[in-house]
Amino acid sequence: MKVGLIGLGKMGLNLGQNLMDHNHSVVAFDLNTAAVEDMKSKGAEGAASIKELVSKLETPRIVWIMVPHSVVDSVLDELKPLLSKGDIVIEAGNSHYKESIERYNQMKEFGVSYLDVGTSGGMEGARNGACYMVGGDQEAWDIVEPIFKDTAVENGYLYAGKSGSGHFLKMVHNGVEYGFMAAIGEGFEVLEKSDFDFDYEKVARVWNNGSVIRSWLMELTEKAFAKDANLDEIKGIMQSSGEGKWTVETALDLQTATPVIALSLLMRYRSLENDTFTGKVVAALRNEFGGHAVVKN
Amino acid sequence: MKVGLIGLGKMGLNLGQNLMDHNHSVVAFDLNTAAVEDMKSKGAEGAASIKELVSKLETPRIVWIMVPHSVVDSVLDELKPLLSKGDIVIEAGNSHYKESIERYNQMKEFGVSYLDVGTSGGMEGARNGACYMVGGDQEAWDIVEPIFKDTAVENGYLYAGKSGSGHFLKMVHNGVEYGFMAAIGEGFEVLEKSDFDFDYEKVARVWNNGSVIRSWLMELTEKAFAKDANLDEIKGIMQSSGEGKWTVETALDLQTATPVIALSLLMRYRSLENDTFTGKVVAALRNEFGGHAVVKN
Amino acid sequence: MKVGLIGLGKMGLNLGQNLMDHNHSVVAFDLNTAAVEDMKSKGAEGAASIKELVSKLETPRIVWIMVPHSVVDSVLDELKPLLSKGDIVIEAGNSHYKESIERYNQMKEFGVSYLDVGTSGGMEGARNGACYMVGGDQEAWDIVEPIFKDTAVENGYLYAGKSGSGHFLKMVHNGVEYGFMAAIGEGFEVLEKSDFDFDYEKVARVWNNGSVIRSWLMELTEKAFAKDANLDEIKGIMQSSGEGKWTVETALDLQTATPVIALSLLMRYRSLENDTFTGKVVAALRNEFGGHAVVKN
Amino acid sequence: MKVGLIGLGKMGLNLGQNLMDHNHSVVAFDLNTAAVEDMKSKGAEGAASIKELVSKLETPRIVWIMVPHSVVDSVLDELKPLLSKGDIVIEAGNSHYKESIERYNQMKEFGVSYLDVGTSGGMEGARNGACYMVGGDQEAWDIVEPIFKDTAVENGYLYAGKSGSGHFLKMVHNGVEYGFMAAIGEGFEVLEKSDFDFDYEKVARVWNNGSVIRSWLMELTEKAFAKDANLDEIKGIMQSSGEGKWTVETALDLQTATPVIALSLLMRYRSLENDTFTGKVVAALRNEFGGHAVVKN
Repeated sequence: MKVGLIGLGKMGLNLGQNLMDHNHSVVAFDLNTAAVEDMKSKGAEGAASIKELVSKLETPRIVWIMVPHSVVDSVLDELKPLLSKGDIVIEAGNSHYKESIERYNQMKEFGVSYLDVGTSGGMEGARNGACYMVGGDQEAWDIVEPIFKDTAVENGYLYAGKSGSGHFLKMVHNGVEYGFMAAIGEGFEVLEKSDFDFDYEKVARVWNNGSVIRSWLMELTEKAFAKDANLDEIKGIMQSSGEGKWTVETALDLQTATPVIALSLLMRYRSLENDTFTGKVVAALRNEFGGHAVVKN
Repeated sequence: MKVGLIGLGKMGLNLGQNLMDHNHSVVAFDLNTAAVEDMKSKGAEGAASIKELVSKLETPRIVWIMVPHSVVDSVLDELKPLLSKGDIVIEAGNSHYKESIERYNQMKEFGVSYLDVGTSGGMEGARNGACYMVGGDQEAWDIVEPIFKDTAVENGYLYAGKSGSGHFLKMVHNGVEYGFMAAIGEGFEVLEKSDFDFDYEKVARVWNNGSVIRSWLMELTEKAFAKDANLDEIKGIMQSSGEGKWTVETALDLQTATPVIALSLLMRYRSLENDTFTGKVVAALRNEFGGHAVVKN
Repeated sequence: MKVGLIGLGKMGLNLGQNLMDHNHSVVAFDLNTAAVEDMKSKGAEGAASIKELVSKLETPRIVWIMVPHSVVDSVLDELKPLLSKGDIVIEAGNSHYKESIERYNQMKEFGVSYLDVGTSGGMEGARNGACYMVGGDQEAWDIVEPIFKDTAVENGYLYAGKSGSGHFLKMVHNGVEYGFMAAIGEGFEVLEKSDFDFDYEKVARVWNNGSVIRSWLMELTEKAFAKDANLDEIKGIMQSSGEGKWTVETALDLQTATPVIALSLLMRYRSLENDTFTGKVVAALRNEFGGHAVVKN
Repeated sequence: MKVGLIGLGKMGLNLGQNLMDHNHSVVAFDLNTAAVEDMKSKGAEGAASIKELVSKLETPRIVWIMVPHSVVDSVLDELKPLLSKGDIVIEAGNSHYKESIERYNQMKEFGVSYLDVGTSGGMEGARNGACYMVGGDQEAWDIVEPIFKDTAVENGYLYAGKSGSGHFLKMVHNGVEYGFMAAIGEGFEVLEKSDFDFDYEKVARVWNNGSVIRSWLMELTEKAFAKDANLDEIKGIMQSSGEGKWTVETALDLQTATPVIALSLLMRYRSLENDTFTGKVVAALRNEFGGHAVVKN
């Protein structure tokens, strides 16, 4: 198939190559012209604008958007007047499922199908076999399924149902991921505080071979410790990019008790602080009622 | 009544005065002779040793121990050979209720009654009206009730039942206290992170007058902010002295879900760290799978 | 002062009487005509419509809205064409502070001042002395301060600053309240699971006299146990009316770690369920890897 | 090697076969004689008592204990007089690491080496390739390493260091496992509460192929949903067998903030209750201050 690929960042570049490995042709666009040249050197057709990209596709056009979720709307605004009834837009970034549903409805007015695709597996997955969760109209899905099948790992894609379900699944996936990562981190922190003398790389390796918690994240834990045996070189600042927060907000809306996912998120926020106002208040109160000493700033 | 008071620290000194205010006579002992002199200057009889203290009491002797829980056993070891059947030992520090039950059983072998007393209200309470939770034998309680009635605030004492129940109640009281303090702290942290410009002392005052959360701890919050409007001068390091941990351990033993008390404790531990191994692991993992930058140490 | 009072539910009726006790005159309206008659019997002027209510006020008109937050907008829609430059609207229900800011901006277009007022203290407070947290323009506040001063308990009102700050403070107040209540509940649950035999009413009383956790909520705990010694008659279903959820959502937006408030909310949601899907999944997994028996439905 | 295997339950039987598959000879004992016969039919030598078992081993004897942790001490009491200097005891059940250290010290008095071995991977692992974490003396380890190497999966064993480190690692492993399981459960609960219509087996499959959270537990999740699509047949009661609790207790002793592991445990306890006293107290309080209706029992 011929796919118009908008967005050639870390994920887009890898996906483009993956598509071409499987004999799909790619028309590539990015505001960063160097990235376009890079894709051209690997066999893609380049485009200098979204308009040119669309003009190089055949009906029904398939446009795959792989951009930060904050710029999806501006890409869609450009696309809308250029697309025709029957065209299919695939948005495979990390958008909020509610926004995806809104975009689906907007595009539907133009007769354009809109698929929301959660993509997991990181850069390596995008290159060699990703994991896709797809929401949107079944008819559009039936047309594009082959490109997902080809670029996913075996059994690594799911048409999950109506619009929004793809990004919803990916959001929750990331919520679970937060929980896994926090559990692994806490486990190693207990090891680290103990008076045993563990070799963390070896611990991650044994936990990854035959144990109940063997997992890709444990493999990555092993890799990380292989590079820096005690993680001395990095700070424990846990950034987050939104999906964990969305999961917790959604859980609140659905009145669902998700303490593990919620705490994994709150501890990320805690890690952004050197000191907390909560701590100051509690320390001050202990001083007030019990005369307990406070540590002065 | 005549009371032998062992332990003249912050709590003991105040309690001794409180007892004498209510026409009880006090025989006071502490390893710190200056404290004994201080009590003498306020009207107490002094003792140079536990032996002397015991010799100055009348049968049935009433010995009130107000020492750190780590030294209770050594005090009891000294007392055991000196006391007789019918004497009453009151241990009013922050001991673990299980230890109190063991001590009760030990003293029972000598025919000595042992009351475990949880004391709340801080130094000011000890001086002017404390809050007591008492466990042990009813017969011993009936004898000493007057001294509790006199030194407590109105309705501020409770004979809670069999041995251990006093310190158990106090332990759980402190667990609840941890939760209150954390909730107050978190509330003010949300205020502090907002883009409103609150005067925290005034907020504590209004929350303390007519609101649902009016409480002594909110009064103390107001006082703390009155001294240091934004708590700029103190660090948010939240020490703990044991009862909160015991409450959580007890909850685990009883298979009781106490997430609020547990988290108020865990966040205290978190506040003791500048950085965490959990954070390092999570940051390293995010780098491994997503290429997210880590902050270097 | 003359106040137009819209909304004569549990809170409005009590507030109306409170206003009249302090020599303010009240024009009262509610869709429920019986409630209007009730207020009239207590000395208020009645109104058969919002239009009539407005017509009975003097410039600058003071309209106090005390309705569920879901109907505030429809009340404002009716009010807008009826009010004039300089009039003051007081909204003293439990609205989200962001909505209050939007309403403030809408009313400002008409030259009408809009004060967002968080009200605490329950029905009894509304009747005899409430607690108010007020946001909005200082000039409007200066005009109406006397009616707040008169109907609040001493020190029980605070002009907190710009629009939204009143409801923000009240929201966070309720978040803290969730934490207090959960901490109290957890404490009593530990008592209840222990093998001691506590009299909960007496425990609440002693904890409320001289202890660190003495508070209005502990007074209410005592009252509740006085009515039903072991709370045998009620189910532990913890409903919630929104402010706790808003507090957590706001904390997430501000990247603030509020585990205690968050967990007190999540456990309320958990209490709405007889069984959970989380539990089913975990039980099924234990069966898969360890052969642990599951309980059949 | 020749191994005396005490304990022929689910784990022991599988391990015995695994040992024999790798040309080790097994002398088997269990109080359940049918299990001994079973092992004999598979090629093991049987023993009618621990004494007989020991008598059939060659010096240095290797005794592998695979019994519930509550009966380890009674097995050791029988073994002590029968073993000689240089013999090696392997205890591969789920004992608390502190007990293992005590047992190590006890056995050391007899000159017997004691290895504490955490075993993961479930019954299937025991049969075809387990995961072992081993603590104890290096010299003893060097002797028995071959039998661990043969019965583990590749890279599935680790000599972790001094006595206790094996069971410590296994304990923390299980703590992490609790976190993983809770995160998976919470994720599916969010899916289940949403208004999408997910096929959970397919979701587990796609999350297990190429995604960041691919893991053995996700494989088991897929299997569980394959058997019962919505887990309608089982109750969400989450039992626990101790290691998660030990992990949290250890974290408390080490002053380590492990909120995710702690909450995964507390929610297991919550799942054992139909109703909670916490809930009753909170519901009663809401009724007291706000007149909110309670649900009657």
